[in-house]
Amino acid sequence: MSKKAVILLSGGLDSTTLGALAKGEGYSLYALSFAYGQRHGIELARAAEQAEWLGVEEHKILDIDLRAFGGSALTDDIEVPKNTHVKEIGKSIPITYVPARNTIFLSFALGYAESIGTGEIFIGVNALDYSGYPDCRPEFIESFEQTANLATAAGVEGKKIKIHTPLINLSKADIIRKGLAFGVDYSKTISCYDPSQSGEACGECEACILRRAGFERNRITDPAIYAAAPLNKKTA
Amino acid sequence: MSKKAVILLSGGLDSTTLGALAKGEGYSLYALSFAYGQRHGIELARAAEQAEWLGVEEHKILDIDLRAFGGSALTDDIEVPKNTHVKEIGKSIPITYVPARNTIFLSFALGYAESIGTGEIFIGVNALDYSGYPDCRPEFIESFEQTANLATAAGVEGKKIKIHTPLINLSKADIIRKGLAFGVDYSKTISCYDPSQSGEACGECEACILRRAGFERNRITDPAIYAAAPLNKKTA
Repeated sequence: MSKKAVILLSGGLDSTTLGALAKGEGYSLYALSFAYGQRHGIELARAAEQAEWLGVEEHKILDIDLRAFGGSALTDDIEVPKNTHVKEIGKSIPITYVPARNTIFLSFALGYAESIGTGEIFIGVNALDYSGYPDCRPEFIESFEQTANLATAAGVEGKKIKIHTPLINLSKADIIRKGLAFGVDYSKTISCYDPSQSGEACGECEACILRRAGFERNRITDPAIYAAAPLNKKTA
Repeated sequence: MSKKAVILLSGGLDSTTLGALAKGEGYSLYALSFAYGQRHGIELARAAEQAEWLGVEEHKILDIDLRAFGGSALTDDIEVPKNTHVKEIGKSIPITYVPARNTIFLSFALGYAESIGTGEIFIGVNALDYSGYPDCRPEFIESFEQTANLATAAGVEGKKIKIHTPLINLSKADIIRKGLAFGVDYSKTISCYDPSQSGEACGECEACILRRAGFERNRITDPAIYAAAPLNKKTA
C-alpha cells in the first residue's frame, strides 16, 4: 500500500503541480481545500477538478469563514492591487495577505493527517516568485513542522510529522516546466486574486503577473483565459 | 485605552478563570469560541454567559466542523472514558484528545489578534491536573509562539506575538482559588466531557474527576450539578 499524504489543494498552478509531484513520488493523496470566504469561489471548482485528475483517495472541502476576522483584499471588499511591476512583487506584505491563513490551513492539514494515520503533509508554498506573504517562507514552515511534532499524539509517540514543500525554492517558470512534464493541464488551474464571475483571470493582479511571467520565460502560451490584454513590457 | 487581548473561551472552569485573570491585568478582551462539532453544545451557551460576565468587547463563535476528520470521543460517537483514577489521569493520551485542536484554535486566535491589531493571546491550557493532551504542554505553547511570530505580518514587522498561559503550572485547586478571588461563579461553568442534554455534568469523566478533586482539596462544594453520586475515595 502506498504511503498516505495530505495535500493542501487550492486548484491553483502551484498546488496542482504539487499534487502531481507528490503523486509522482508514489503517495496516495488526501486533498484538503477550504471555503474560507475567498472572493473567488471558482477556486473550489478548480480544486475539485484537479483532485479528480490527480486521482485522490479523498477530497475534503472545509468551511471556515475567515471573513469573520477580515483585514484582507482576498476576503473583504478591499481592492486587489493591480499592475504592480513584477520586480516589486514580494518586497513588502500586500493587502491580499490573509492573517494567519497558512497557519490555519496547516493546522487543519495536521488534524486531517493525524486522523488518517500519516505524518506526511504537502503544501505548495513558494518563496521566490511570490507575493511576500510571511507564511510562505522556509523559516515559517520549519517552525510549524517543529510545533506540529509537539502538538500531536503522533509526534509524541515518535511518528514524525513532515511538512513537504517541494516548490519552495523554485521559480514560477521551473514550477510550470515540472508540472508540464507530469501532464498538468494549466488551462484548468486558477491563480488570479480577482477573477470575473465566469472565472476569467484579471491578468493584472500579482498572482496573474507572476504566472504570466513564468509562462513567458518558458516561451509557452499561458492557456488561462484573461480578461486583460496580453502581458507587456510594463509588467514583465 | 487598555491593551487588547484575544482569549480562547470555552465556558469551562479554566478558560473562565483565565478571562478573569486577563481582565484583572487590565486587558480589554476579545473572546473566541468554536462550534467544532463537540458533543456538548452546552459549552457554547456557557461561553456566551461567561463572555457577558467578563464584559468582553466582542465574542466571536466560529463554526469549524472537526467531525470532518473524526478520531476523538469529544466529536465522534466513541464512548468517553469514565471513573479513571485521578492519579492515572494524564499519564497517556486518552481518546478524548482531538487531533491538532489547540493548534487549530490558536491559529484562529492568531488571525483574530492580527486583524484587531494586537499580539496578546490568552489560552487556558494546564499541564498539571490535565488529561495528558500533547497540545497543553509548555513546549508546545513555546513552539507555537515562535511559529506565530514567523507566520504573521505583525511578527515580521516586529510586533511580538505573545501566547499567555497563566494557568499552565497551576493545580486545579489553585485555579479555583484564583477564580473565586476574582468572583467567578463556577456554577455557570461546564467542564464535563459528556454532559446530559440538559447540561448536567456526568461526574465521572476525567474532566469532572479533576474538577471535583480540585474543589475537594479546597474544601469547597463544587456548585456544578452532577448526574452521578458525590465524589468518593475510589476516584479522589
